[in-house]
Amino acid sequence: MAKYNAFYAQSGGVTAVINASACGVIETCRRESDRIGKVYAGRSGIIGALTEDLIDVSQESDDAIAALRHTPGGAFGSCRYKLKDIETHRAQYERLIEVFKAHDIRYFFYNGGGDSADTCLKVSQLSEKLGYPLTAIHVPKTVDNDLPITDNSPGFGSVAKYIATSTREAALDIASMCATSTKVFVLEVMGRHAGWIAAAGALAGSGEGEPPHMVIFPEIAFDRAAVMARVEEAVKKYGYCVIVVSEGARYEDGTFLADAGNTDAFGHRQLGGVAPTLAGMIKQDLGYKYHWAVADYLQRAARHLASKTDVEQSYAVGKKAVELALEGKNAMMPAIKRVSDSPYEWSIEAAPLAEVANQEKFMPRDFIREDGFGITEACRRYLTPLIQGEDFPPFENGLPKVAKLKLARVERKLPAFEL
Amino acid sequence: MAKYNAFYAQSGGVTAVINASACGVIETCRRESDRIGKVYAGRSGIIGALTEDLIDVSQESDDAIAALRHTPGGAFGSCRYKLKDIETHRAQYERLIEVFKAHDIRYFFYNGGGDSADTCLKVSQLSEKLGYPLTAIHVPKTVDNDLPITDNSPGFGSVAKYIATSTREAALDIASMCATSTKVFVLEVMGRHAGWIAAAGALAGSGEGEPPHMVIFPEIAFDRAAVMARVEEAVKKYGYCVIVVSEGARYEDGTFLADAGNTDAFGHRQLGGVAPTLAGMIKQDLGYKYHWAVADYLQRAARHLASKTDVEQSYAVGKKAVELALEGKNAMMPAIKRVSDSPYEWSIEAAPLAEVANQEKFMPRDFIREDGFGITEACRRYLTPLIQGEDFPPFENGLPKVAKLKLARVERKLPAFEL
Repeated sequence: MAKYNAFYAQSGGVTAVINASACGVIETCRRESDRIGKVYAGRSGIIGALTEDLIDVSQESDDAIAALRHTPGGAFGSCRYKLKDIETHRAQYERLIEVFKAHDIRYFFYNGGGDSADTCLKVSQLSEKLGYPLTAIHVPKTVDNDLPITDNSPGFGSVAKYIATSTREAALDIASMCATSTKVFVLEVMGRHAGWIAAAGALAGSGEGEPPHMVIFPEIAFDRAAVMARVEEAVKKYGYCVIVVSEGARYEDGTFLADAGNTDAFGHRQLGGVAPTLAGMIKQDLGYKYHWAVADYLQRAARHLASKTDVEQSYAVGKKAVELALEGKNAMMPAIKRVSDSPYEWSIEAAPLAEVANQEKFMPRDFIREDGFGITEACRRYLTPLIQGEDFPPFENGLPKVAKLKLARVERKLPAFEL
Repeated sequence: MAKYNAFYAQSGGVTAVINASACGVIETCRRESDRIGKVYAGRSGIIGALTEDLIDVSQESDDAIAALRHTPGGAFGSCRYKLKDIETHRAQYERLIEVFKAHDIRYFFYNGGGDSADTCLKVSQLSEKLGYPLTAIHVPKTVDNDLPITDNSPGFGSVAKYIATSTREAALDIASMCATSTKVFVLEVMGRHAGWIAAAGALAGSGEGEPPHMVIFPEIAFDRAAVMARVEEAVKKYGYCVIVVSEGARYEDGTFLADAGNTDAFGHRQLGGVAPTLAGMIKQDLGYKYHWAVADYLQRAARHLASKTDVEQSYAVGKKAVELALEGKNAMMPAIKRVSDSPYEWSIEAAPLAEVANQEKFMPRDFIREDGFGITEACRRYLTPLIQGEDFPPFENGLPKVAKLKLARVERKLPAFEL
């Protein structure tokens, strides 16, 4: 049987465990060495394929690949770059075929979120529309947990665990300070359109009065008066108020609370600063002393506090991607299926990529409490299994050890290509 | 031998490990039960003593007290409240004597930083100036690491480990994104006047080009042009730039980069927002896409990532405080003495409180690189031992377990007192 090489790349915002998926893909390819040749990683995602900037993964030791499992960030470089339509931008696709042909690549693994699934879907059409025999599999990943079909997105469980833990810890801090000092603490978390990460903050407490006292979701229109009433109530009743607010918090008309005015390469508005904005409103309306934190990259890079469940699922989708490719399943994505809540059981099934790309999964309304400021029991049942278990990385000299890769470039065989 | 009761309270900004000191004080008092009666904790620091709001620690189980060792925040409540001079505010001191007399308290343990050491020093004068036989010991604590005499401040090692780890993790994130997206990441850390925490960020890397590429200290006047030149150089050379900036970063004339305009109860300016300020300057001057994070309370509450060395030292100063009190050493503070760098060895010695109160220890100039943007080898030698070892808390249902105390109030015996 002829052996062909595999291409693997990372795309979109990275997570604490995207490299665990890389590890799953690469280790599985190595185990299947009688059927798969070399693994070439694209430097900076699909751009690596277009510019023939390939990394020869075969030069990395087994230990280095194993260390990917506990290394945050995207080890091969990620990108925010969306392929245009095959009909209007045929040259790009022909270039991909040239590169794949030149390096004998017939397996394509793309590790990303909703936008990246779209790129993977377009690449998967090479075989049908342009006749190049490629099997393209999307490996799911996003801290936003907004991919459809899959019960949860690899990468989310770890950010959820980090935010829930940080909320619990910071709440103990402010609870000690509130008698004479800070009364309100605002933690801003990621989640542009979907409030999954904000919801995870609510896992920090559950009993009456336990912080956080309020979660502000992008799914619920921001009502300043209602928010202030709730803050005041919490401070009067418990002495302090802890708020977890999504970066995507917005008014009824869709305007974001914090809009930095920039857009990213996908055309999304770059957000940031809702925590200071909200804290300022509270100071203005109620006069309370506040503190605020913006976790930003810290939350999605915090591999030191990853969810063991998430690490295992991230590895598993990487492994399954290779298995699907070897079964000849083009344009698919390994999706997590929840078998039961408690005890938590899950399996991996194949989902058609066409049903995944460019879809966002929002919080169902029945996961958000009726008053709009917290989560329901159904949401808690859904979220709780995802943060279970710890998978601390090895530490060296007081700090987490991370994989050191050679990232050796594969010799170029083609002329340069302008993006 | 007559047995007297002990008073313990927490003051100032809390840390991830101040409760480990509480644990050290309380467990040692329990072991010395033939010489010390009950431990009464002041609710909200010295305010608990003044208002006779005392917590009967004897009602807490041994397990609950042991759990303090891995619980962040101040379990008995802290305060920002500084006693006035004994000469001008005699009534306050007479009230303290009344409360101590009413509850048979002759040992006073105050757990705090520089401002709190001042309060403890004033209380220690009760015996000399007002004739009440009290032994007052200060238990050191501050994330700022700015207490004099002690080689390092309990609480600092853990925030240092958190900031170094978070910097390393977030740097891997931005390194993966920089090809097509974010070029600059700014992490704002605490440290109003002293750059110790910012310096800890530099532990994330050491080799050429390893992030962080720049540390901005409060000790070095902020020079916008010099900072921008350095950012541009890093982006051109490494593709991205990671900056750790102290909240206390300031211009030559002393103006803070970010001044929220509020002051706390000690009269200090409330800072916050230097990260977005600096990120905005970079966007304006260089046009780079940025991300920024403000760790705020997260950094000083992150017990899940505490330094084992710090936990051990925090416990040890609590234990030593009780031992000093039993030796009749009034107005003292257990201080950490460094015996050797490598292997790191330390001991605890008694320091006179008069030499500690109201002093701030800044970064020595030879700990800051000549260009002002990084740390020297001497600094690295000093900092490295402080972040060694992990002391993960127990986790339950995916989250760190924390102590649940009864916090039962001791019955009041005196009339109310207006602060």
